[in-house]
Amino acid sequence: MILHKLEYLRKKTILLASQSPRRREILRLLGLEPVVVPSGFDEESLDKGVFVTPAAYAEENSRRKAFAVLEKLKDRNALKVETEPLKPDFIVSSDTIVVLDGHILEKPTDEGDAFRMLQLLSGRKHLVISAVTVLNVINLESRTFHMETEVEFAELTPEETWAYIRTGEPMDKSGAYGIQGYGGALVRRIEGDFFCVMGLPMHEFCKVLSEMLD
Amino acid sequence: MILHKLEYLRKKTILLASQSPRRREILRLLGLEPVVVPSGFDEESLDKGVFVTPAAYAEENSRRKAFAVLEKLKDRNALKVETEPLKPDFIVSSDTIVVLDGHILEKPTDEGDAFRMLQLLSGRKHLVISAVTVLNVINLESRTFHMETEVEFAELTPEETWAYIRTGEPMDKSGAYGIQGYGGALVRRIEGDFFCVMGLPMHEFCKVLSEMLD
Repeated sequence: MILHKLEYLRKKTILLASQSPRRREILRLLGLEPVVVPSGFDEESLDKGVFVTPAAYAEENSRRKAFAVLEKLKDRNALKVETEPLKPDFIVSSDTIVVLDGHILEKPTDEGDAFRMLQLLSGRKHLVISAVTVLNVINLESRTFHMETEVEFAELTPEETWAYIRTGEPMDKSGAYGIQGYGGALVRRIEGDFFCVMGLPMHEFCKVLSEMLD
Repeated sequence: MILHKLEYLRKKTILLASQSPRRREILRLLGLEPVVVPSGFDEESLDKGVFVTPAAYAEENSRRKAFAVLEKLKDRNALKVETEPLKPDFIVSSDTIVVLDGHILEKPTDEGDAFRMLQLLSGRKHLVISAVTVLNVINLESRTFHMETEVEFAELTPEETWAYIRTGEPMDKSGAYGIQGYGGALVRRIEGDFFCVMGLPMHEFCKVLSEMLD
């Protein structure tokens, strides 16, 4: 665990390779204030067909994002805080996917696609997988892991589904919903780590980071 | 479900009989902006011994809180928004308890008590029960329900336990932890509704409120 190392960790500079406000919020729950550096890596550029499992695909995505940020660091002018170049200690990246019947649900392409996905999820269980990479910028040690959480959706009528789509929330989210928003009302129960569904499994992340600090 | 009724519901005045910022946050996730009116009811004034189950005790607590706020409404001078008397439509109250081996863990009395509770929870599963009352102030219809969520704690060394106590987070919380904070790092997995652990089971609350709007 990590709580007895938080004071030490707060002095470190952590780059978060994600623009997700939810992941940032999870780090803030730990009292950490990461610097957000979007990786620029296109999550959907990998060929899913070459991966044995959806989890392996998510893990590779998270690794690519972390190392894309490491590449950016080589260009000292690219990453500055005000006029000072960044001197980060860790890069943290994460990739979250929604899996139904072994198939990965991406972000919806339009509202009709969101409707199709939400109706697929309605009244059933699916998996949310979050893969995380922690990369120590000083010694280049890296750790990648993933967590799976089962999510049981409420049954949604077409009317309720369109009401949810009209909130605008589904459009930028894998599987067309977010649990930390209106979407929370659609989730009957989960088995696993809630923070995995939010985008960064907090307990396992703390455990891994803690081991890397030893 | 409720999403297709949210627009209608947003025009209603909801009193939240709780000072918990986490419960308020859950209502805000739904786009609702409740007026916080502490009930003044002493949660620990009921004799636990007379209740058949911990859930029945939590339900009675939530009922008492809602009706205590209803009493306050009778004194028109007591509840005003600026100079206008409040004209609420619904009162929402909730009581959350932590149950280990059938025994209810209260808020810790001091840091030593928090240490004792956290060591009891360490490496084991416990139940979090949130009971909710929704009271329609116009027709006095009320509904009370509860949800249970199983929480599996990480193993905590004494050092980690004290580090958590030093954050100050455990002292005002039932069972000496909060999941929406540093405490999130202590939770290995849950089975049930995350929002139940946060203090207000969002899905079931939406379902019940939706039925009351019909």
